[in-house]
Amino acid sequence: MIPALSQVGDRMFQLTGVRAIMKDIIETLRSGAGREFINLSAGNPVLLPEVEQLWRDCTAELLASSEYSEVVCRYGSSQGYQPLIEAVLEDFNQRYGLNYSDRNVLITGGSQALYFLAANALGGYTQSGDLKQIVLPLSPDYTGYGGMTLEPESLKAYQPHLEINEKTHRFKYHPDFSKLEINAQTGFVLFSRPSNPSGNLLSDEEVEKIAAMAAPHSVLVFVDSAYAAPYPALNYAPMTPIFGENIVHCMSLSKAGLPGERVGIALGDERIIQVLEAFLTNLCLHSSRYGQAIAARAIRSGALAELSETVIRPHYQAKFATLESALDEAMPDSVPWYLHQGEGSIFGWLWLKDLPMTDWEFYQRLKAVGVILVPGDAFFPGLREAWDHTQQCFRISLTADHGEIAIAMQRLAEVARQVYG
Amino acid sequence: MIPALSQVGDRMFQLTGVRAIMKDIIETLRSGAGREFINLSAGNPVLLPEVEQLWRDCTAELLASSEYSEVVCRYGSSQGYQPLIEAVLEDFNQRYGLNYSDRNVLITGGSQALYFLAANALGGYTQSGDLKQIVLPLSPDYTGYGGMTLEPESLKAYQPHLEINEKTHRFKYHPDFSKLEINAQTGFVLFSRPSNPSGNLLSDEEVEKIAAMAAPHSVLVFVDSAYAAPYPALNYAPMTPIFGENIVHCMSLSKAGLPGERVGIALGDERIIQVLEAFLTNLCLHSSRYGQAIAARAIRSGALAELSETVIRPHYQAKFATLESALDEAMPDSVPWYLHQGEGSIFGWLWLKDLPMTDWEFYQRLKAVGVILVPGDAFFPGLREAWDHTQQCFRISLTADHGEIAIAMQRLAEVARQVYG
Repeated sequence: MIPALSQVGDRMFQLTGVRAIMKDIIETLRSGAGREFINLSAGNPVLLPEVEQLWRDCTAELLASSEYSEVVCRYGSSQGYQPLIEAVLEDFNQRYGLNYSDRNVLITGGSQALYFLAANALGGYTQSGDLKQIVLPLSPDYTGYGGMTLEPESLKAYQPHLEINEKTHRFKYHPDFSKLEINAQTGFVLFSRPSNPSGNLLSDEEVEKIAAMAAPHSVLVFVDSAYAAPYPALNYAPMTPIFGENIVHCMSLSKAGLPGERVGIALGDERIIQVLEAFLTNLCLHSSRYGQAIAARAIRSGALAELSETVIRPHYQAKFATLESALDEAMPDSVPWYLHQGEGSIFGWLWLKDLPMTDWEFYQRLKAVGVILVPGDAFFPGLREAWDHTQQCFRISLTADHGEIAIAMQRLAEVARQVYG
Repeated sequence: MIPALSQVGDRMFQLTGVRAIMKDIIETLRSGAGREFINLSAGNPVLLPEVEQLWRDCTAELLASSEYSEVVCRYGSSQGYQPLIEAVLEDFNQRYGLNYSDRNVLITGGSQALYFLAANALGGYTQSGDLKQIVLPLSPDYTGYGGMTLEPESLKAYQPHLEINEKTHRFKYHPDFSKLEINAQTGFVLFSRPSNPSGNLLSDEEVEKIAAMAAPHSVLVFVDSAYAAPYPALNYAPMTPIFGENIVHCMSLSKAGLPGERVGIALGDERIIQVLEAFLTNLCLHSSRYGQAIAARAIRSGALAELSETVIRPHYQAKFATLESALDEAMPDSVPWYLHQGEGSIFGWLWLKDLPMTDWEFYQRLKAVGVILVPGDAFFPGLREAWDHTQQCFRISLTADHGEIAIAMQRLAEVARQVYG
């Protein structure tokens, strides 16, 4: 029997964005019996021994303590595990000179869950039938934003301004403030900083300008800080997290070595925290507590912030340097290629301007030479106007090793040479 | 600033059912400085040393193995952690003579999350504007069902038939098949078996009859087995889990000592599993994996099923016996009291027929003598017709110790004597 689905069911049965592509990649890898692929599609972070050891040590401590049974064998508060809330507060208040209390923190089962709650509590239709839009001020952005809304029409992304350096083959996105609209129809604003997929880092001034545009309309700005300082500190350019009355600072510990445990953290005004907490209660009672308990220890001791700076960031920053030099060396002058400035995240973002085929077709050509990248079209959720740029970009994971990245870029350069003719 | 909420946000900001009462209870306990309360409101299971040791042992094994980093430090599949899926399949296929494959299993972040997914994928409005109802065939039922739907009007509960034994002061609910409707407007059917709050256990025949009524309309029946055999085996009367083409067997490990980790398991037709999995992916990528990994070990070894029968069930069954004898002894003949047959769960369910005040007022009177029960009105989500019975019932947690239960029932008997005059 095939069950009839509701409107929400129909919508949520669709796998959006990069997940549809991941199916093709998984099938390629499975069916490629005997063939070797250099897989630069992975979003799964590299297992870094020092980071794994941190989580093992915290687990051993937890297991040796009487705290264990309280964490694992008892229901908890919907808001989150109190020692984690306190550890985050103490760290952030001290580090950034803030004055948040425990009413300003919510722990969710990963940050995707946090955006799902926000997207549907603040975006979508109101009681009076108005559509509240979720504004993504700079497209491309995180592909998961495409799947979080029960009403797809609520998502509205804006085409960015491109700063292009033809000589160095680099480019960088900026919000296009001449087009960006934030008004009474806006439910909330959302962007990742540093950005997955592009590695772009909105400047402090850009974030402040967006927050200032939103404030008069009582619109909240959610800053997806999954790659930001202080953990996992996957910013390569200097950055200051920005806080403010209408800013919700959203964190994830996935890139700090804890993706399996799904720990998301929201820091913001207590009224929005209450709304999201109530939604979370109705949805799942509370988030799993073991990940929260070991995170509390790693944050309290300072070890997580330290390893982020001394181990996690240098690992990916060195990979990005390899990507840059490999492309600089291998790419033919005849190809108008542009690598996005590497300001953070665990990805490189390559734009092949005037590519004489779609990103999907180029992806297939790369597969034929044993290289897997992610075609970029999936990273423009909510963008409605046609823009050829969306089919000219590729996300390159920095999780492969240095040698693989270099070889893959040589092969990509050769395919590009053929394709551009 | 107070953010404007969408319709979904307004709805999900409301804490439904027992959660509103829990606030009053928490405040009572906090403000009762120096006063001693016997708290029979708790849903948090008792920490049983053998059960805690099982989870500690499984954790130590996991930590000593190379599996640890794969579980905690990597993203996983949305469907769930493969070793847990395999352990559940092997156990269920063997134990109940089934033939399920790994396409028939989904792991969720607790069973509340599972019902949220089902409630909104199968219940609510369709593309064509029809309302698909979520049918609760026997009210009272789990209070959390009241919070899971984005559209409250989709929930429809049915008043049961009461089997009353005036001599023994016991009663039992049955589905009232003369009223129950399952038709093309039904999204799915849902009930807990054994039932929270009443401890009622639908018979095999009753479950099969409901499933047979649903099948011609391609309607699925979700059986909330959070208290069922084989784990946590909190059935005191014999029971057989019922499987079938349109039955989704839903489990939770919360009452098997793992509430903090949020592990829910659905076992059913692969098409509904796919729908719920896609929804889960969009909502939160996947469930936390540590709880899944230790559960896989505890199920595979057989230890979880064994401890459920030898430790968990006897613990609560003995508490129920204490509750019965305390009431039988203390309650005055002048009061028309009826205890629901204790067929499972971790609660007793007391009906004070013709109670000359509301359940909420009686709850306040009990607080005044230092006893906290949960007034029953919160356990009838989706029931629309007026029924005085809903304000005459009380849920009594079996998590307190034997002496506390006995004293609380003596005090309750005294209050009842006064109230009935």
